[in-house]
Amino acid sequence: MTSFPVRTPERECLVDVTPQVARLVSDAGVAEGLCVVCVPHTTAGVTLNESADPDVARDLLAFLAGAVPHRGPYRHVEGNSDAHIKTSLLGSSVTVPVSGGRLVLGTWQGLFLAEFDGPRQRTVHVVVARG
Amino acid sequence: MTSFPVRTPERECLVDVTPQVARLVSDAGVAEGLCVVCVPHTTAGVTLNESADPDVARDLLAFLAGAVPHRGPYRHVEGNSDAHIKTSLLGSSVTVPVSGGRLVLGTWQGLFLAEFDGPRQRTVHVVVARG
Amino acid sequence: MTSFPVRTPERECLVDVTPQVARLVSDAGVAEGLCVVCVPHTTAGVTLNESADPDVARDLLAFLAGAVPHRGPYRHVEGNSDAHIKTSLLGSSVTVPVSGGRLVLGTWQGLFLAEFDGPRQRTVHVVVARG
Repeated sequence: MTSFPVRTPERECLVDVTPQVARLVSDAGVAEGLCVVCVPHTTAGVTLNESADPDVARDLLAFLAGAVPHRGPYRHVEGNSDAHIKTSLLGSSVTVPVSGGRLVLGTWQGLFLAEFDGPRQRTVHVVVARG
Repeated sequence: MTSFPVRTPERECLVDVTPQVARLVSDAGVAEGLCVVCVPHTTAGVTLNESADPDVARDLLAFLAGAVPHRGPYRHVEGNSDAHIKTSLLGSSVTVPVSGGRLVLGTWQGLFLAEFDGPRQRTVHVVVARG
Repeated sequence: MTSFPVRTPERECLVDVTPQVARLVSDAGVAEGLCVVCVPHTTAGVTLNESADPDVARDLLAFLAGAVPHRGPYRHVEGNSDAHIKTSLLGSSVTVPVSGGRLVLGTWQGLFLAEFDGPRQRTVHVVVARG
């Protein structure tokens, strides 16, 4: 397991961590296998989606903000229940194939840390396993 | 693969299975790798979220109950379409790193079986693989 | 990693790929381990849900169509923002145990490619790893 820090600039944002993950996979020396990317947080998740047009990330965040309002009839008193809910909707880990020693992503896919209660310092864990 | 049973007490509830999974990982004798936790069900899923304050789980369930009503214009005649939908929204598996022979979870993270059509006896599968 | 093509017949549909994945797992010669099924797309995902009654898939698609409208106040100009959002809600990969050389699914579970911007030719990647 290798980890790296991510500084998230806003309360809700998607931070593209594809370059960091791709480098860790190249360094791992695993020709064929899989790569797990996950976060040890409960108000931030990870997701794969389009990284070419930043409006895709904005549309995803805007949808989630509408579906899971920041203020609502929540019981958790810290004021970030929406962030916990969004984290479970997107998930805390994604798994991507490794082939030819490299991360296998589609042409338009990017790996995002999805921040829902920032700005903060976050951690991303990466595990590379042989197939 | 190792499996253990879970008795869910209500139609919709989150059952914290972190202790059972952590013990299986310790017993597996894998120093570095990953742990997959999944369920063989279609009306219950798994998710990582905060386990310290039970209100986080209650808020998540209340949100899902509002977003995906139990009764609605569904075609599936068994009366549990909402449970199937919630299962796909949360997902049927989570993957967590293993390091130093132990499950790597964040300070606030707990592993939950998410029941949407209980009460029932459910099964959780755990696979530990070398990294 | 092995891959296979899937022809999706409609803009939004769930295509059951369980037989193809089960055959690849049998062919992989791995007795105990795990199987990752993922897609290199950003407007199609993968999910596990009931395959016996096709109305379960229809209810899931109808729910998503209502929750994430095709036309809306989106910024991404390609007219498929709903498909990107649905992909992140369902996720791009699922992980299933392998035991006795076979894919371990529950009685009612099927593995679906979830198309949200078809009809198209899609690709499914399968990685089998030793546990």
